[in-house]
Amino acid sequence: MKRIKLTISYVGEKYNGWQKQSNGNGIQGILEEAIKKVTHEETALEGAGRTDAGVHAWGQVAHFDTNSRLNPQKFFYAINQFLPDDIKVLSSCEVSSDFHARFSAKKKTYMYKFYESEVILPLLEFDATKIGTNFNFNLAKKALKYFKGTKDFKSFCSVNTKVKSTVRTIYKIKLKKEKNVIKLFVTGNGFLYNMVRIISGTILEVGMKIKKPEDIKTIFEKQDRKFAGRTMPAKGLTLEKIEY
Amino acid sequence: MKRIKLTISYVGEKYNGWQKQSNGNGIQGILEEAIKKVTHEETALEGAGRTDAGVHAWGQVAHFDTNSRLNPQKFFYAINQFLPDDIKVLSSCEVSSDFHARFSAKKKTYMYKFYESEVILPLLEFDATKIGTNFNFNLAKKALKYFKGTKDFKSFCSVNTKVKSTVRTIYKIKLKKEKNVIKLFVTGNGFLYNMVRIISGTILEVGMKIKKPEDIKTIFEKQDRKFAGRTMPAKGLTLEKIEY
Repeated sequence: MKRIKLTISYVGEKYNGWQKQSNGNGIQGILEEAIKKVTHEETALEGAGRTDAGVHAWGQVAHFDTNSRLNPQKFFYAINQFLPDDIKVLSSCEVSSDFHARFSAKKKTYMYKFYESEVILPLLEFDATKIGTNFNFNLAKKALKYFKGTKDFKSFCSVNTKVKSTVRTIYKIKLKKEKNVIKLFVTGNGFLYNMVRIISGTILEVGMKIKKPEDIKTIFEKQDRKFAGRTMPAKGLTLEKIEY
Repeated sequence: MKRIKLTISYVGEKYNGWQKQSNGNGIQGILEEAIKKVTHEETALEGAGRTDAGVHAWGQVAHFDTNSRLNPQKFFYAINQFLPDDIKVLSSCEVSSDFHARFSAKKKTYMYKFYESEVILPLLEFDATKIGTNFNFNLAKKALKYFKGTKDFKSFCSVNTKVKSTVRTIYKIKLKKEKNVIKLFVTGNGFLYNMVRIISGTILEVGMKIKKPEDIKTIFEKQDRKFAGRTMPAKGLTLEKIEY
């Protein structure tokens, strides 16, 4: 038995997110079906992160076990034969049996993309969210430092989050601007439900002067979702990479 | 009666191209319907260029005449209310009655986008065409100079082209590379049917060493479509701007 690690990219637009769906519209399930066609075995694919409906991925990681004798490095070519163009495996390799796509992950990086415009720009709508033209980039940057480090993110996750601990570590958080496109990169040891989308919405509100940079400190103290900013739409979010 | 000039952006993916279609799936027709809802008049919209099915646009230009008393600069807001998110008017203004979106155009710029990869990259498939990894960028650049100037582009248009003259002028042609994405920008006084897609395919074949840069000269002399390179898919093509 071999354990195979896959790096996967997808456009989230048409799917109900990563998780397997009874209607067959989850990305995990579509990949399992494709793998089955290659290995002729029942397959359980474990992903590093459960992306929501509409969220894109450049480097989702997943693993599965197989008795197939196919060269592990060439597995991805075979699987791709059975995948649509908006879900593709970029690479594959053999890993040790104690590797786990989710539990072995050390760092995850997400990117949220905004664009400044009064009008919807059709060619940017594909993976970005319009934010108008009253966004102060330098002010928004001042909010970043408050998110860094190991903190309780209770105020920055969906009220439906059911986990033992809402403490997470953010290693890196960066805002980049190129012309009218603004990208927020966040790297952490893990993320709570809607956490990146709420952090993005809070930083947006700082840039729009709805909140002050130093308000973030108070929001953390309140430990209550309602004090943070809006939850940004799924569409602007991309899972960039998983590090092990 | 006022003449209104519109600058329009769209994602070509779901449409049968610019030209009005009897099935309602042409971008021109969708815009005319939206304008009609604003002006309550029958409207004939003239576009600067007829983009094919699947071709995107950042700056298509079109004009129409109206008796509406709406502020010409605000027309686009009203029209956008009746348009889907993948077709939007970016701006509007009044022009003199001798302005014609197509006949007054001095320069048109198209962009063709390729990406280098062995595997389909879902997040680039939206507006670019995969070309493998054996593309020599510097070699391809050497082909560019042969296209510049006023020439007979008979070898570089579809055999179905029915026009009096196949002579056109290319003012500027440029290749840019950023990581694995290559963009070809072409500015000319006008383009024949499939001309940008065939020029793109020919430059691609030079980069792939199927053709030599100096072969372009011979291809022009042959005045025969079959000597040029392949017609690239519509998807990688974007109408960038029209200048007056």
